[in-house]
Amino acid sequence: MPIRVLAFDGDDTLWHNESRFHLTQQALRDLVRRHVSDADVEGHLFEVEMGNLGLYGYGVKAFTLSMLETAIQLTDGRIPAVDLQVILGWGKRMLTEPTELLDGVQESLLDVSARYSLLLITKGDLFDQESKLARSGLAELFTGVEILSDKTVDSYRSLLKRRGIKPEEFVMVGNSLRSDIAPVVALGARAVHIPYHVTWNHEHMPDEALPGDGWHRLGRITELAALLESLDQPSPVRT
Amino acid sequence: MPIRVLAFDGDDTLWHNESRFHLTQQALRDLVRRHVSDADVEGHLFEVEMGNLGLYGYGVKAFTLSMLETAIQLTDGRIPAVDLQVILGWGKRMLTEPTELLDGVQESLLDVSARYSLLLITKGDLFDQESKLARSGLAELFTGVEILSDKTVDSYRSLLKRRGIKPEEFVMVGNSLRSDIAPVVALGARAVHIPYHVTWNHEHMPDEALPGDGWHRLGRITELAALLESLDQPSPVRT
Repeated sequence: MPIRVLAFDGDDTLWHNESRFHLTQQALRDLVRRHVSDADVEGHLFEVEMGNLGLYGYGVKAFTLSMLETAIQLTDGRIPAVDLQVILGWGKRMLTEPTELLDGVQESLLDVSARYSLLLITKGDLFDQESKLARSGLAELFTGVEILSDKTVDSYRSLLKRRGIKPEEFVMVGNSLRSDIAPVVALGARAVHIPYHVTWNHEHMPDEALPGDGWHRLGRITELAALLESLDQPSPVRT
Repeated sequence: MPIRVLAFDGDDTLWHNESRFHLTQQALRDLVRRHVSDADVEGHLFEVEMGNLGLYGYGVKAFTLSMLETAIQLTDGRIPAVDLQVILGWGKRMLTEPTELLDGVQESLLDVSARYSLLLITKGDLFDQESKLARSGLAELFTGVEILSDKTVDSYRSLLKRRGIKPEEFVMVGNSLRSDIAPVVALGARAVHIPYHVTWNHEHMPDEALPGDGWHRLGRITELAALLESLDQPSPVRT
């Protein structure tokens, strides 16, 4: 069945995201180590984030709250409030930074939007994601936007059902094996993995847990149109 | 045209919400006044919340971040981190508390769900609202759930269009004149206002800004079925 709907993840697929978190995390390490010089800031922050995931979900506000908790815990409450105010400021800066598109995104989306119906499927904070999309200048290329609280087999299944899309005509493009590739392939749809140079630990997936086929990997989004064309080639038995 | 789709706001229409914020706000006042005895905590918090609305949106995470900012500012950074840790804990408690339904909600929804297609239209934090709905036990009564980042004439218009609903067959039920009544009536749909005993300042609306007709006010949700029946009476000229 020919591809009809092409869906894209947003964060680290269309625009830079994890690198912003990464930089802020380094700043947090430096700040906390002024008080506790040997603190394992990254390790503790990751634990706190995982502990809070079921309560806070994903996004900058959740990250800011987890940074504050980490800083207070690692310093046994000795960190001065003015340092915590600095952390609050980092969160705000992340929420206002311009949406920085990855190389080749604009041209590639323009190209494929002529042939397929485009969906944006992101997870995270509703307000934050809507704001990033608005700032990206890409909004009018998409026929629909779906912001999910998490990307699981069930959430993809109900999304496809709600929009009347068959798995065979659906292709998902994203940087996360765990969120964009594995659950989509499990449904019988196809997926294209375009890795980003930094991956959040939580999104890591061991190679042996990956589906054997039904997905492809590209080095950059500019190679997407050619790949889709090859997937859509009529099979030789068709006349 | 007969009513086909009946939509409900969630917070303070189906379940208690503002009263939880109110209690936490009182606790914040007491906490900050231990450091600055004459601080105008409520007034300053409201200013901070309004200043952050465009960045954070609505919801418990946004509220927690604004409480922290308020506490640090009002004490000129002198508040100890352990007190800020207490504030973080309040936010977490709000996110885990059971969803407490308002009186009569369960029976009334069961009753009207037999005659109309029910939608839930809330604003706020996606993750928080999905979790509240799941804990409410009401999810299966709704044919659809829409979580908006804000409730404006435009967001209602695109929602109705997306779902193929005509304004004349749509009724919105909610506690906020600003979010549930005024924008809906502006679109030519009807609305039912059921006030809650506490209203967040931001949702206040002067009486003179309210539409003259197209909406009704009820004391409690148990009166809703009878009102809808009277609105749906065939007009005398029909045979």
